[in-house]
Amino acid sequence: MTTLPRKDLFDLPEGVIYLDGNSLGPLPKHVPARVAEAVTREWGQELIRAWNSCGWMEQPLRVGNAVARLIGAPEGSVVMGDTLSIKVFQALSAALAMRPDRRVILSDKGNFPTDLYMAEGLIALKNAGYELRTVAPEEVADAIDDSLAAVMLTEVDYRTGRRHDMHAITDKAHAAGAVMIWDLAHSAGALEIDLAGSNCDFAVGCTYKYLNGGPGAPAFIYIRPDLAATAQPALSGWLGHDAPFAFEQGYRPAPGIERMRVGTPPVLQMTALEAALEVWAETDMAEIRAASVALCEQFIAEVETACPDLHLVSPRDAQHRGSQVSFAFEHGYAAMQALIARGVIGDFRAPDVMRFGFTPLYIDSADVSAAVTILADIIDTKAWDRPEFHRANRVT
Amino acid sequence: MTTLPRKDLFDLPEGVIYLDGNSLGPLPKHVPARVAEAVTREWGQELIRAWNSCGWMEQPLRVGNAVARLIGAPEGSVVMGDTLSIKVFQALSAALAMRPDRRVILSDKGNFPTDLYMAEGLIALKNAGYELRTVAPEEVADAIDDSLAAVMLTEVDYRTGRRHDMHAITDKAHAAGAVMIWDLAHSAGALEIDLAGSNCDFAVGCTYKYLNGGPGAPAFIYIRPDLAATAQPALSGWLGHDAPFAFEQGYRPAPGIERMRVGTPPVLQMTALEAALEVWAETDMAEIRAASVALCEQFIAEVETACPDLHLVSPRDAQHRGSQVSFAFEHGYAAMQALIARGVIGDFRAPDVMRFGFTPLYIDSADVSAAVTILADIIDTKAWDRPEFHRANRVT
Repeated sequence: MTTLPRKDLFDLPEGVIYLDGNSLGPLPKHVPARVAEAVTREWGQELIRAWNSCGWMEQPLRVGNAVARLIGAPEGSVVMGDTLSIKVFQALSAALAMRPDRRVILSDKGNFPTDLYMAEGLIALKNAGYELRTVAPEEVADAIDDSLAAVMLTEVDYRTGRRHDMHAITDKAHAAGAVMIWDLAHSAGALEIDLAGSNCDFAVGCTYKYLNGGPGAPAFIYIRPDLAATAQPALSGWLGHDAPFAFEQGYRPAPGIERMRVGTPPVLQMTALEAALEVWAETDMAEIRAASVALCEQFIAEVETACPDLHLVSPRDAQHRGSQVSFAFEHGYAAMQALIARGVIGDFRAPDVMRFGFTPLYIDSADVSAAVTILADIIDTKAWDRPEFHRANRVT
Repeated sequence: MTTLPRKDLFDLPEGVIYLDGNSLGPLPKHVPARVAEAVTREWGQELIRAWNSCGWMEQPLRVGNAVARLIGAPEGSVVMGDTLSIKVFQALSAALAMRPDRRVILSDKGNFPTDLYMAEGLIALKNAGYELRTVAPEEVADAIDDSLAAVMLTEVDYRTGRRHDMHAITDKAHAAGAVMIWDLAHSAGALEIDLAGSNCDFAVGCTYKYLNGGPGAPAFIYIRPDLAATAQPALSGWLGHDAPFAFEQGYRPAPGIERMRVGTPPVLQMTALEAALEVWAETDMAEIRAASVALCEQFIAEVETACPDLHLVSPRDAQHRGSQVSFAFEHGYAAMQALIARGVIGDFRAPDVMRFGFTPLYIDSADVSAAVTILADIIDTKAWDRPEFHRANRVT
């Protein structure tokens, strides 16, 4: 166990305070050498033999086990691959197959759009009278009834940081006979998650945010172990087959979580992620969470003192908040560009939200104060009001 | 234009004759530096800003255009992402939506299993009386009738190298009112493909074989341009949305091929692939194909002379064959292990097929003769009959 932060583990650019690790985590220092090894020795010298000799074939499960330890899931219950959108589709299609007599999927309007979009696509494909019902996040619990096939929620709202009560909602969904799916995109690596204890049926998440797996790192999917042998894989690719190299004509799913594998895994990305996860060997999630709460509380207090024009849109109570803080500001887009230009990197989410992620592995109290000082200066001097900071077609 | 081979462009291991580029292409020499740049400078220093500053967001279409040039497809008709299994699912689901009154998908029993498995999964999901009909490869043309919603074939058979007549079958499918989908997994980078001229509706393929994109490199999907604005994306992820960063509640597909994007792209893999594709700037597919045919003809002739116990299972006529040659041999598994142990890397496909890929970029006539000499020695001396070469649970 060590004391936070561990900036020594990361390759952070000079002069940057990085408050966007909730969007793309930074580069752990040891990752480039590991990726180079995978490219030059494994691919270059071992070639096709590397599927055996370098453990490429088992990597999605091996890395899944490393993720499982960080989210409170047992060994063998998580597998890596594809993108979070695909994993949402897999979980939701398997969930609907478990409740053939029900037709409603419940989610909330704060869910990340791709989760809702994938549900729309699945519903169109099934063409059997399914409905995606979305309510305000605070109305979810009351909207759970026995018409629901599945409840599909993201634990932490990507825009506001609002956090659902995973255990209570799961219990309520189960009491109503619905399947529970959690998206942990903004939870894994940020919060203490007791996935097994929540008793939820499925969970999915991405690894390029708080887990620092690199741009486009593979996603994960969890199935509660007692369901893994019967969950129906709609995306029934050859590497989810029980015997991929028998090249049988008919699909037979692998006995457990590996049935959620689809095609050939992205070995180079998987290797970057596998290396990045080693950072967590020296920390624990309780310590991370406590430090994150302290940083968020400090940020809220200092911004509210220094920048009265900004309005907190995140929950004030840390218990109901993830590891980010969002403030609404009329000129939020331009202000964020001005901040980035001065080395404080957060991001913007329409219509007016300035979003700041707090990641105690490489952000400390001095960073928070320095960031607020720059932010206050930008607001006070209207430094955001320059043409180059106005909104254009930008990604972040 | 240059003369083949171009071994100078590749980092090939000492003492290896690599006849498995149809499974995993070798490492182009300039790729490691480009991947390192993406890891260390783009991810490490640019962080989230790289989505704009390093062109990450446009990369799937930019790389798609590079692939399009190699398969006879127009600019803007190909996009990269996910795995080939996912791309098969996308093409097939969009095809079925175009023929709502038809219920049969035709494929052949030689198709790569994942294509058939994904069709099975889609059929189960739709639960509307669809049928996957598979016939022997040589019976496909006769099996096309006006009951078919879609014909889905892999141009080159992964096991035998048998090649379908893409233009003739597409014409016949269209005459019967069916949608035509081609899987180019064993074609892209090996054959001259006139995709636009074939008039097919969809094509998909992978890039880690003849295109040397690296293990788990992203797949591609093509939609004929006149269909791209209406093809229905079943896997409706946020990056296929018309305005991903507007974070709208409802899904609206992007106007063209980019609607087939799903989730966050694997930037590191995409960068390896983008760099690898530069190899093709100095070659053309007609030259590649002519050299491939010559190597295959030489290999067949020399093996049939030196190894009478091996029986050709690939078509003898080059016109009906891809860029690989397969021989059946009762002890094929062990013989392939013995070959690999002596540096000649091909692969084995159940039940008894020894498979050899010919890739004129880095294989020449002397390699072919050297490989046959070693193969003949192994067969003549029964060098394959050793415990360490017997079948185990191996990947290749």
